[in-house]
Amino acid sequence: MILAQVIGPVVSTMKINQLDGYKLLRVRAVNPDGSFSGPSIVAVDTVQAGKGDTVVVIDEGGSAGVMLEVTGQPIRTVIAGIVDRIDTEERVQ
Amino acid sequence: MILAQVIGPVVSTMKINQLDGYKLLRVRAVNPDGSFSGPSIVAVDTVQAGKGDTVVVIDEGGSAGVMLEVTGQPIRTVIAGIVDRIDTEERVQ
Amino acid sequence: MILAQVIGPVVSTMKINQLDGYKLLRVRAVNPDGSFSGPSIVAVDTVQAGKGDTVVVIDEGGSAGVMLEVTGQPIRTVIAGIVDRIDTEERVQ
Amino acid sequence: MILAQVIGPVVSTMKINQLDGYKLLRVRAVNPDGSFSGPSIVAVDTVQAGKGDTVVVIDEGGSAGVMLEVTGQPIRTVIAGIVDRIDTEERVQ
Amino acid sequence: MILAQVIGPVVSTMKINQLDGYKLLRVRAVNPDGSFSGPSIVAVDTVQAGKGDTVVVIDEGGSAGVMLEVTGQPIRTVIAGIVDRIDTEERVQ
Repeated sequence: MILAQVIGPVVSTMKINQLDGYKLLRVRAVNPDGSFSGPSIVAVDTVQAGKGDTVVVIDEGGSAGVMLEVTGQPIRTVIAGIVDRIDTEERVQ
Repeated sequence: MILAQVIGPVVSTMKINQLDGYKLLRVRAVNPDGSFSGPSIVAVDTVQAGKGDTVVVIDEGGSAGVMLEVTGQPIRTVIAGIVDRIDTEERVQ
Repeated sequence: MILAQVIGPVVSTMKINQLDGYKLLRVRAVNPDGSFSGPSIVAVDTVQAGKGDTVVVIDEGGSAGVMLEVTGQPIRTVIAGIVDRIDTEERVQ
Repeated sequence: MILAQVIGPVVSTMKINQLDGYKLLRVRAVNPDGSFSGPSIVAVDTVQAGKGDTVVVIDEGGSAGVMLEVTGQPIRTVIAGIVDRIDTEERVQ
Repeated sequence: MILAQVIGPVVSTMKINQLDGYKLLRVRAVNPDGSFSGPSIVAVDTVQAGKGDTVVVIDEGGSAGVMLEVTGQPIRTVIAGIVDRIDTEERVQ
């Protein structure tokens, strides 16, 4: 599971049928210092997350099925929660 | 799931029997700022994606089987949709 | 499994029901030279880890279920132990 | 699945029994511009790949078992095909 | 599977019960040019690897169980063999 920030929606009309009905959001990983890194991740929204929200993303097929209460769907990445507060990074060592 | 861009076909004649009949495309991850990163990913096409298209790629064996409607195939990475539109990145925080 | 350092708690009230009751910590990967790298990882705590602790993190759904003694939970990343001592890196080659 | 290039054999006499009889090759990921990146990947050869060959590598236990026609083997990474031709990268966007 | 080098032991007294009895080693990925990269990986030793050894590491729960001849253990990363010899990197393309 990682911390990520929501960039915005992903609109795709030409896609496999199994993705119909799911809201796809583009997110990016949040580094400990608040900066961002890595490629654009595409996640199914389950918590009505909005642009700029910090969220917890789970990236595993089995977990995705549990959260969406479906089986046999080709979905791997899901937003599991909106983060209210995280401690700012300090040099903790 | 990640956003990626199609670079072009991968032609492989000595591949194992199980991959026969699948169209393989080389894609690369798309960063939030529109640049690219990471190694060349090889994905099975399911949506007639073409060179330069932005696509959603799922990288998991179980999901791949569901999308291709096969079981027991050694396939992990599949293009699940062509993206029509994504919001350009703005500083959203 | 990786070595990571605990940054602090992740507070998320809108999370899906299945994550209720688990203590979520934000951690970051520890490099061999003691520096840190990568995005913020979110892990379920099982060993009462505190801020600044060096921990062993397992990132796999099956293992997470075993450690938490649950099945069918959408959890992939768990802190499995607090590290007492690791050898400082020397040029070992 | 990724594109990779074969660097050469990995010779290991002191290893678990289950890896006996498999030819292990060291490969490295190929970037879209033809450069290389990332750590040394160790893959089981199934297609008589040789040094310098560009290959398709699948990194998943289930797929590895299908390709090798075995079950219950601790193998995750397999070379699935030798690539005859890939389009050179052009700025496709 | 990746090539890695052993840095040294990981000592953890406060950990989940299921990890009792396993020898944990800290390793780091070996790049094709012999340098190192990435975070500290924690792996269960099965082959009496020592500090400085180059080893093959498998990172998958299913494979870990097969190698350790256990089921239902929360272990994902195991050292599967000690490498006797790898070809030095040359520009092979």
